[in-house]
Parts: sequence; C-alpha cells; structure tokens
Amino acid sequence: MIMLRICICFFVASLGGHALATQAEKQAVDLIAYGDYVLTMQADEQLIEDGAVAVSQGVIVGVGLATEIDNRYTAAKKLDGVNKVLMPGLVNGHTHSSMVLFRGMADDLPLMTWLQEYIFPMEGRYVDQALVEAGTRLACWEMIRGGVTSFVDMYFYPDTIANVAVDCGLRAVVAAPMIDFPSPGFKGWDDSFAAGVAFAEKWKGKHHRITPALAPHAPYTVSKSHLDAAFTAARRLEIPVSIHVAEDRAEVDVVQEKYGTSSIELLAGLGTLKQSTIAAHVVWPTDADIAKLVGSQAGVIHNPTSNMKTGAGFAPVPKMLAAGVNVGLGTDGAASNNDLDLWQEMRLAALMHKGNSNDPTLISAMQALDMATRMGARAAGLGDKVGVLQIGRQADMIQVSLESPRFDPLYNIMSHLVYVAKSGDVVTNVVAGQVLMEKGDVATVNIGSVRADIREISEKIKTDLGNR
Amino acid sequence: MIMLRICICFFVASLGGHALATQAEKQAVDLIAYGDYVLTMQADEQLIEDGAVAVSQGVIVGVGLATEIDNRYTAAKKLDGVNKVLMPGLVNGHTHSSMVLFRGMADDLPLMTWLQEYIFPMEGRYVDQALVEAGTRLACWEMIRGGVTSFVDMYFYPDTIANVAVDCGLRAVVAAPMIDFPSPGFKGWDDSFAAGVAFAEKWKGKHHRITPALAPHAPYTVSKSHLDAAFTAARRLEIPVSIHVAEDRAEVDVVQEKYGTSSIELLAGLGTLKQSTIAAHVVWPTDADIAKLVGSQAGVIHNPTSNMKTGAGFAPVPKMLAAGVNVGLGTDGAASNNDLDLWQEMRLAALMHKGNSNDPTLISAMQALDMATRMGARAAGLGDKVGVLQIGRQADMIQVSLESPRFDPLYNIMSHLVYVAKSGDVVTNVVAGQVLMEKGDVATVNIGSVRADIREISEKIKTDLGNR
Repeated sequence: MIMLRICICFFVASLGGHALATQAEKQAVDLIAYGDYVLTMQADEQLIEDGAVAVSQGVIVGVGLATEIDNRYTAAKKLDGVNKVLMPGLVNGHTHSSMVLFRGMADDLPLMTWLQEYIFPMEGRYVDQALVEAGTRLACWEMIRGGVTSFVDMYFYPDTIANVAVDCGLRAVVAAPMIDFPSPGFKGWDDSFAAGVAFAEKWKGKHHRITPALAPHAPYTVSKSHLDAAFTAARRLEIPVSIHVAEDRAEVDVVQEKYGTSSIELLAGLGTLKQSTIAAHVVWPTDADIAKLVGSQAGVIHNPTSNMKTGAGFAPVPKMLAAGVNVGLGTDGAASNNDLDLWQEMRLAALMHKGNSNDPTLISAMQALDMATRMGARAAGLGDKVGVLQIGRQADMIQVSLESPRFDPLYNIMSHLVYVAKSGDVVTNVVAGQVLMEKGDVATVNIGSVRADIREISEKIKTDLGNR
Repeated sequence: MIMLRICICFFVASLGGHALATQAEKQAVDLIAYGDYVLTMQADEQLIEDGAVAVSQGVIVGVGLATEIDNRYTAAKKLDGVNKVLMPGLVNGHTHSSMVLFRGMADDLPLMTWLQEYIFPMEGRYVDQALVEAGTRLACWEMIRGGVTSFVDMYFYPDTIANVAVDCGLRAVVAAPMIDFPSPGFKGWDDSFAAGVAFAEKWKGKHHRITPALAPHAPYTVSKSHLDAAFTAARRLEIPVSIHVAEDRAEVDVVQEKYGTSSIELLAGLGTLKQSTIAAHVVWPTDADIAKLVGSQAGVIHNPTSNMKTGAGFAPVPKMLAAGVNVGLGTDGAASNNDLDLWQEMRLAALMHKGNSNDPTLISAMQALDMATRMGARAAGLGDKVGVLQIGRQADMIQVSLESPRFDPLYNIMSHLVYVAKSGDVVTNVVAGQVLMEKGDVATVNIGSVRADIREISEKIKTDLGNR
C-alpha cells in the first residue's frame, strides 16, 4: 500500500513536469496543522477536504491540500488531522471573564433581585485584583478548552485581565470599565475614566495579542457628556470602545425618556459609529437603528443564552444580518449563562430565531459559524487579524474531533459543527501559532492551582450567602 | 489517619448503644451507588450530601446517607461517588431513534421542502428493518452515553426497536406507528393499524423493560374514526398511546377547519384523555385545551430544540406547569435536533421561555430537572416505575461527574446540572440495576460494528442525494 502511494506520487509529479521538492528545498515553517476537513471561512474554497495550514512566526503562510502543503513546507511540529476539522478559532465577542466566580450563585430570579441582592453586593464585597486574576485564569482555561482563541473582556482590573491573557496565550480585547456610579475600586466616573485611559495608554502597542479598549458601561449608566469623553479618548488612542447597547426594554425606556432618542441614535449623534465600536446585546434596535449600523464601524455582539436567561429577549439578528450589519457572538459573563461555551451560542443563535419567527430558514448553520469566526472577528474589531484561515492572517485555529459516534453519519460538516459539536469535541487550540491545547490538554493554565484559588474565594462568598 | 477513623467509628457506634453491623449481619444487595450529592427528586429529602442508593434485583431498596447505607448493606458491586451527583436517569419522552440516520442530511429549509424533498423520500427509499436496527442501536449508544435511561419511541419496525432496547438494556415505551397514508411497510391505515395492534399484543407483558404502545401519527394525518379505533384498542390492551398534538399552526388550522375544534378538544371528545396518552409537542394549545389536560391521564412532552429548529414555536410550558399539567422533555428525532441530548433540552427549556416572555423567573433549574426525571416519567406513563430515587422504584439512575473546572465554583448543584452539565459529564448509567455504562464506557452496544452499519447505509443515502 505504501509502495503504491509512492508510485502514484512519483507519477503525478512527473506528469506535472516538476520533480518533487526534496526535504532540503522545502521551506521550513514552525507548524503544520492538518484536517480531514479544513473550514477556511474564506469566500472561495470555504471547505478543503484533506487540507492543511502552514504557520511561520505566528502567521499563516500556506493553506491548501495536505499534499500541496507537505510538498512545499517542512515543520518540526505537526498537528495530525485524522478525523478532525481544522477551522478558525472562535471569537467570544462579549464576556466578563472573572464573573465565573459568580457562576450559579443565583438564577431564575427577577432581574432587579438578581442584580441588587446578589451580583452588585457580591461584586462590591469580593471583586479585587486576586478575584479577577483567579477568575480570568479559570475563564481562560474554559475558553481555551472550548475552542475560543479571542475574547473581548469588560471588567474591573483590566491590567490583571490583560496580564492573564498574555500568560494563557489567548488574544484579547481588554476594555476598561467606566461608569457614573461607584464600582469596585472607583468612586464614580472621573476616577474610572482616568484609570481606563491610563490602562489603554499603557497597553497600546505593548503586546501583539492584546488590544486595549475603553468600556463606558451603557447609555443608561453613563451620561451623554461622559459617553462623548470616552469615545473621544478612544478616537485619539485609535482603540475600540466596548459598550452594552439596548440590552432590555427598561434601558430603551430610560434612554428614550432622558434623551428622546434610542441608544443607537444617541451614539450615532455623538459620531461614535464612525469609529470602532463593539456593541454588546442590541436586543431592541429599531429599524432606523439597524439602518444606522449598516456600513458603520460598529459591530454587534449577540448573546443568545444571556439574553434568554435574563429575559432580555430575542435580538433581531436575522434582520441585522440581512441588512449587512456585522454580528458576532458572545457568552456574556458566566453569572448569566452559566458557562463560556461558544458552541452553545452558535447552536442557540441558529435555533432561537427560527422558533421566534416560526421560520426554519432563518440563521443557517453557515451563518452561525460565520458569526463565531469571520464576522465575529470583524464585529470585535479583529477582522484584519483573525477569523479566516488565509495567508497573512494570524494563526488562530482549532481542531474539532469527529471521533464521537454523535457525529454519525456525516452528510454536512457545517451542520454537524453547529447542531452536534460540543465544546468538549475541540481537541487543539492554537493562537498566533502557539499551541495552547493539544489532545484536549490545556498547556498554558495551571488549573490545579487556579481551582484552589477559586475554592478559597468562593468559600467566603458561600459563607456570606449562608449568613443572610 | 486510618487508625484515627477506626477509633472514631468505634466511639460513635458505642455511643449509639449499638454494635456496628458486622459483614455477616448486613443485607447483601446487588449494587450500591454513591454520590457526593444524591438528587433523589423526592418531595422531601430532595438532595442528600454524601449519600447512596442500594439496589437488589433491579429495585431500589435503600436511599440515604452513605454511612447509613454502608452500615445496613453489603454489595459485590459498588459505584464510587467521589465528585459525582447520583440522580434518576433521564426520560426522553419523544423520539424517533433511528432517524439518527438522517442527522444533518438537510437543515435550515422551509418545513415542506425539508419534509417533501428530503425526509419523506429518503424514508420511503431507505427505511427498512436493517436501517431501524442500526439506527436504534446508534441512538441507544448516544442516549446511554448521555444519561437517558428511558425513551419513548415512535417509528417503523417497532418489533426491531423493542428488541434493540432489550439488547442495549434501556427501558422503552415503543409505540407502533399508524397513519392514513402509505408509509414504510404499509399501504395505509388498515395494515398499519393491524400490525400495530399485533405488535402490542405480542409485547404486552413480554419484557419488564418494554411497554408497547400505539402511535396514531397526529389528528391531522389520522381520521377521527381511526383515532377512535386506535385509542379504543389501547384501552382494551391497557397500554399508552403516543401521538403528535398541536405541533404547529398549520396542524391547528387543518384540524379546526375539518372538525371545528382544536386537536385536544377532538381527543377529549373521543374520551382519550381518560386513558394514558403521551402527547408530543403541544405547542399551540388554547387555554381551554390546557384546562382539559389538567387532571387527565395525558402527559405533554415538550421538545425545545425541535420546536425551535422546525419553526413550530414556543409551547406555553410555564402556563401548563402552573396549571398542573405533567410535562416531560423529548429530543424528537435527530433529523430535527440534531442529537439525542436531554441536557440540551433541559437547558433550553429553562432558557427559551424566559426569553420568550421576558421573564427570567419562568422555568427554574429545578423545574427543568423535574421535567427530565420525575414529571417526565409521569408524562411518559412510567411514573410508578422510575423518575425518583425512592425505595420500591426501579433502579434507573445515573452519575454525573463534577470533575471539569466548568463546574467551579459550586454554589448550587441544581443550577449546575441544568446550566453547566453536558451529556459528556455523565459517567455512569444504570437501568433496572444493570450497569449499562461505567466511567463513560457504554458496555451494551458494540459501537464499532454499529458505526460500520451506519456508514454502509448512509453512503447509499449520500450517493442518492448527490445524484439529484
């Protein structure tokens, strides 16, 4: 059998008029990753059977048939692709990583009870640099394990979040929180704004995987002039703004009463849609709002689980996609999810709008995959770097094992990725060419030590809850 | 350390005034299963920390603290409970198991295109005894792996389905399909009805894990007199009827036009709600329909994923539960899901109604668990046998591992089971005292051989699809 294959190769090479490249003639690269199926997410050649990707210095230098890649490149490190899909890593466009500490602390409650009796008091009492460090590390483990390669975070102690992301090998947009009210570490707007800008100035250009950003909380918790200040500072620093927008009806009503406009009209009036804006949720945009988002620099992050769990509702994602808005996917924090699993979000995004509109054609499997990768990267302001397996892009990619009998039979790989695959099926995670996970083992997080830290913090919270 | 423990035990036993039961005095049972948490689903003592269940001849003979159980029973087979939840096995109240063969064959299409261009023609061409045998075996593997211990099936070749369930060790309600139109193996109503009744007569009392049932397809595909005949036969045989009811708007309109009533009014008029009826879907009941279901012998099976994927909509489950209707959960067939994962259905049931009604208090984690176990067993007509870990019930139970860092931290076990646990976290599956899976390895399905059969059949379907 081996002999036969060699003969065929020789014959094909001869026919082509070229000698096969010898080992010496091949270009040495750092890594070649293979896949029985390579889902590139490029417009052409979306799916390559028996494909491979060559990586040099963290950047993709070759994408094609495995035979072609093997003929052109040699690599010390190879990731075999038998029974695997190789695809771009997933982009978690909106999360508050370290809120994993509040996972399952309180559920199924009225929104105000949940926030005012559980989340806000516990954040006030327990969120410090140590909690954010432990929580972000646990969240990074979970995201790496589940195939996320980039995340957009918005939480306190952004410096710590950025350092942890650097350590764990993930790509991150780290947005510094700013709000008109007292919050962990801050008295109100002035000091949170100043600290956020200082964080962004410190991290701007500091590390190739970290994009600093500003996070004015939302149009109903930050005044118009403060919103203007935040967006102006971001424009000056040429960094994105991450902000909650039109998450629930209550917000819409507050903003309408205060300004006589929608949240998106308010932002548009400040000129902010002309600069990189990562708008989380956008559950309640009007048709006029959607028209304003088209062709803007604002991307929308859809959070299916969180929007259902908090009762926010169903964002008009089919309408936004049809209009041409860039929509990505997010998990939100684990307090309202309760995990950081983009596969669940993909599946839900493909299901919930069908159910809500009684139309089974809305949000195809391919659209859900697009929101989690190519389009999601664009929505998060990372569209020039990741989201597609293409020469010149950063080598952020994952392998999904098709080994489980749950994948039998196989008619359509895109359908299986959205409707069958689970986060546990991801076996390899590579960011900027660095292998963060192989065979399901996360290499860059000392999870035993992190779990001990989490236990110590959560025991205090548990005792506090029990003493009420 | 060991010495110290022995001393303490001795001391406690002396204090209690009883000698510890010696090995000889303990009652010998077949199996003891442990759990750091035992979720009994009983009204009292719902959750026991450091608990255990003793099993003799397939029946639960003891439930309590591990120390109590160990003191009273001895067993050759023990299932350790470290870092595990022991709970009742899940009940999949509505599925068409062997439709796993059509998993991912066609998605995201208009309902009629999907049915008439894909599902019906492929069923017509490929559904035979061999397909049902291979498909049901694969489905049983998937259900055992994911913690399902009972399922209600409705598909062609019910004799084969029952035999496969017997082989695989699962408990099953196997409902013989009857419809007014030609279907695989049948010309129309008369022969499908006769075969169904013959199947039920053959299997009635034949095997302790198999309940035969009749499955007149739906009120819009089976005439009123044929519905009456099916329910009358089931009454005579004292077996349940499994039937699709009010799945989508189109059905509601057809039945209204034909009979001037709703589907549930039609069934009620035939007297069927006084006998065991497993009503699948019930997405569009009126308030009057819900009132009729209360206190009836009819259970409703809610199919969250399928109802969203086909665009059927959101069943008024919160309203049905509040009224006191027994509601269980189902996966439906894998063609409209695309898997057989009750954990996804639990999670979705807890999420979708919150989103649909903008009310985060609807369907608590505990209610979702109840629908998948205790109440689901009732809705499937198995309420006297399974669904609760209680003395006298059949020993159908599972262990869920909490080993993954996804479960950190742990505030509330019910929340984690619904919002975090995945089918892959189930490590043990026991039905009627038989261990079908241990440490994640399914013992009763030769999955390699099944996969080969599935491949052979699906290759033909794939070629057929490709030749269009």
